[in-house]
Amino acid sequence: MQARVTVSEEGASGGHGGNEVDWPVMDQAMIDSIMAFPAETQGKGNQSLEPTVLADGTKEFHLTVAITEWEVEPGKVVEAWTYNGMVPGPQIRVGVGDKVRVVVDNQLPAATDIHWHGVMVPNSMDGVSPYTQDPIEPGGSFVYEFTTREPAIAMYHAHLHGQVAIPNGLFGTFIVGEIPLPRGITVAGREIPDDLVISQEIPMVLNDAGVIGLSLNGKSFPATQPYTGTVGDWVLIHYYNEGLQIHPMHQHQFPQLVFAKDGIPLDHPYWADVVTVAPGERYSVLYQLVDPGVWVWHCHILTHAERADGMFGMVTAFIVDE
Amino acid sequence: MQARVTVSEEGASGGHGGNEVDWPVMDQAMIDSIMAFPAETQGKGNQSLEPTVLADGTKEFHLTVAITEWEVEPGKVVEAWTYNGMVPGPQIRVGVGDKVRVVVDNQLPAATDIHWHGVMVPNSMDGVSPYTQDPIEPGGSFVYEFTTREPAIAMYHAHLHGQVAIPNGLFGTFIVGEIPLPRGITVAGREIPDDLVISQEIPMVLNDAGVIGLSLNGKSFPATQPYTGTVGDWVLIHYYNEGLQIHPMHQHQFPQLVFAKDGIPLDHPYWADVVTVAPGERYSVLYQLVDPGVWVWHCHILTHAERADGMFGMVTAFIVDE
Amino acid sequence: MQARVTVSEEGASGGHGGNEVDWPVMDQAMIDSIMAFPAETQGKGNQSLEPTVLADGTKEFHLTVAITEWEVEPGKVVEAWTYNGMVPGPQIRVGVGDKVRVVVDNQLPAATDIHWHGVMVPNSMDGVSPYTQDPIEPGGSFVYEFTTREPAIAMYHAHLHGQVAIPNGLFGTFIVGEIPLPRGITVAGREIPDDLVISQEIPMVLNDAGVIGLSLNGKSFPATQPYTGTVGDWVLIHYYNEGLQIHPMHQHQFPQLVFAKDGIPLDHPYWADVVTVAPGERYSVLYQLVDPGVWVWHCHILTHAERADGMFGMVTAFIVDE
Repeated sequence: MQARVTVSEEGASGGHGGNEVDWPVMDQAMIDSIMAFPAETQGKGNQSLEPTVLADGTKEFHLTVAITEWEVEPGKVVEAWTYNGMVPGPQIRVGVGDKVRVVVDNQLPAATDIHWHGVMVPNSMDGVSPYTQDPIEPGGSFVYEFTTREPAIAMYHAHLHGQVAIPNGLFGTFIVGEIPLPRGITVAGREIPDDLVISQEIPMVLNDAGVIGLSLNGKSFPATQPYTGTVGDWVLIHYYNEGLQIHPMHQHQFPQLVFAKDGIPLDHPYWADVVTVAPGERYSVLYQLVDPGVWVWHCHILTHAERADGMFGMVTAFIVDE
Repeated sequence: MQARVTVSEEGASGGHGGNEVDWPVMDQAMIDSIMAFPAETQGKGNQSLEPTVLADGTKEFHLTVAITEWEVEPGKVVEAWTYNGMVPGPQIRVGVGDKVRVVVDNQLPAATDIHWHGVMVPNSMDGVSPYTQDPIEPGGSFVYEFTTREPAIAMYHAHLHGQVAIPNGLFGTFIVGEIPLPRGITVAGREIPDDLVISQEIPMVLNDAGVIGLSLNGKSFPATQPYTGTVGDWVLIHYYNEGLQIHPMHQHQFPQLVFAKDGIPLDHPYWADVVTVAPGERYSVLYQLVDPGVWVWHCHILTHAERADGMFGMVTAFIVDE
Repeated sequence: MQARVTVSEEGASGGHGGNEVDWPVMDQAMIDSIMAFPAETQGKGNQSLEPTVLADGTKEFHLTVAITEWEVEPGKVVEAWTYNGMVPGPQIRVGVGDKVRVVVDNQLPAATDIHWHGVMVPNSMDGVSPYTQDPIEPGGSFVYEFTTREPAIAMYHAHLHGQVAIPNGLFGTFIVGEIPLPRGITVAGREIPDDLVISQEIPMVLNDAGVIGLSLNGKSFPATQPYTGTVGDWVLIHYYNEGLQIHPMHQHQFPQLVFAKDGIPLDHPYWADVVTVAPGERYSVLYQLVDPGVWVWHCHILTHAERADGMFGMVTAFIVDE
């Protein structure tokens, strides 16, 4: 294997025209890396977290924060910071008007807290220690309690030590109620059916730093999850950026209808084949599978999807049947 | 104090699971850094610049460009490049149709000029030396004269040596007339009152490089200015990016109504809890204070708001009373 | 000449207040660099590629992929990866419903393929080897065949080894049919005439990495192409980002009407003086030349337009006659 060819993000310089590289070796390495998809790894993020329903109807959830092993790509196991042992943390889904109670047990060596990014909560529940609460000490616990007020496509993550904790894995998705879908409208001449049926709803959580690194839902290609569907299906995706950089997410072929920003509907959706998501942002998009085949779906910052010896990082694919 | 823990923006790699860090020390450093807010420092940017009104009604402003000391955060004094000794430079506000005259005295060791970014001016006043004027030599002066044509949420900054001069502090805000506010409209089901009253208008100038570094209005947390208000208030903010990177600005809790881009109203505003501002861009947003408490407001690139030993940089807070 | 003064994109640090720099020398270097525009270099990208029309009406195009010399700025010749010897590759323009055939001859030392980014094609023509086809081996060839379905403002580029191949020059523009222009509408109080006539259509392809580096249409200032027009002209621009970073493109004076994203019209265009384009994105804008003069047009990431010893990279100008 050759020494890695690096392309500077600074642009500028230059140098290798390519003739000094052993290209047959690199070609094969690239092909091998791509054909390795989908690869099995231990652990799956975004698993649904079921509440205990208390006598007064409160939905109680339990989150344990700890440093646990996480297999980012085949054979690459890192010391991740996790909620309930997974990256992203378990998905929490509640209704509007629900009384929510989240019990957090901190088994980290560091103090922590949880900010409900995009959810309207009272200030005492905003998770910004030491302003709105005391930090949750190692071995300690804290109970977040609030009643949801409106629909949200939101995230939860640490705030204290955020620049270490979040890239290392302390993030999850939090959905309140139902985001209204665009139905029976025409956008740039394309109709969205009035009787729109969503075949699947996909959380797509982006990260690029810490021990997890460049990843989709906590996994790096070829360990990223493939998605499958049938021609004609309508797919709903929520992008969440928990990283430190923007990620322009490119769906091959299917134009994405961007219809909500940070969980709030746009009065006028628009189409895009690249949806750029900055840190902290969420975009909700809708699209229809049009043609059969294997359609890759990746960040278009090329160095987030490929390195000289192979495809990696922020890449997955939609496999569409007739 | 431990050696600084670094999280690479390149993502990738990994390493520290956290166990080698002395977390109790880091926890305390983090808490201390947060509780230090708001901290006193010398100097305040964005001060209003009053014109001399000449016989023919012309509004004459004076700007002196020099290298002066600037306290970015408590005890960190840098050799900033300043207009009238402050960062951001003084705020200039004029009406539509005003005759404007700006006398610039250059006390820098380098030549300079001023570009009126976002203001329609004749080419000879565009401040792009040596194309539209000769550079203003050290010790020299230049008079910019133009009549404003339309409302603007604009900036002024050096163009020559811009990549050194601007990050080091040579920027200010320039407002022409009144930007029309959205009134009596409903956006995503949320009403903006017809009789909207703005309780305060906040310029929020972003920077990330040079001697000033990661900062809001020329100051790094905990020296950033806190903002105060009362439940029910409507707040108007103009973001201006004078740095080299995007900054996704996150307001805890209050969704921001984005209603103008680069000072020009959007026909269809939209809501966001993260507003991403790229270099050179301006976004104008409106929001209402809903709940009492201390609501932090920061760039969501985590390394722009926190380092291993504490909160810093692009962070401030809205302190809301009942 | 001084050692280069660097301003970290990381912000933070600081140091040089400027007094240690020999500013008269730097001032002159800056002026000289700016006055060198426009500079002659060998080679011009985006040249129109004429098809051979076959008996059944198919439009056949030929692309040869090779490493060839490319003069990025005066005297800086690099080993670029090119289509038909130019950067960007030749512009391909076809109609909706056209049968298109593109014969690709690979003279690179590496395998390659071509992805039609933004064009709806069957999966077998999507150019993602080894999924949708075998890689085109060095010395080999491949024929892409598809019938266009709808208008597109698209790009073509390598997919295999994309992070090396694309920054090094393997990209071009691909236009299908006519994008509908906004006519007879009013946006933020500004009217677009019903009888709008476009005086020129400009492809503006952005890059920032590889051997080409920070550039507009394959050239670095002062070798970038100047644009000329007359007061009153309406200009149509398509931005295409083939680089690794966002580029906020600032037109001095003329507000740009953003009316299409990724080649699909926005139902509600908006005005901006800075249009931020992320990797893989395309934005189509329209604007009118209002005042005579030399109006610079550049990326507003200052370090993409200037270095300590002069203007360079992503800068050009519109020269407007009365």
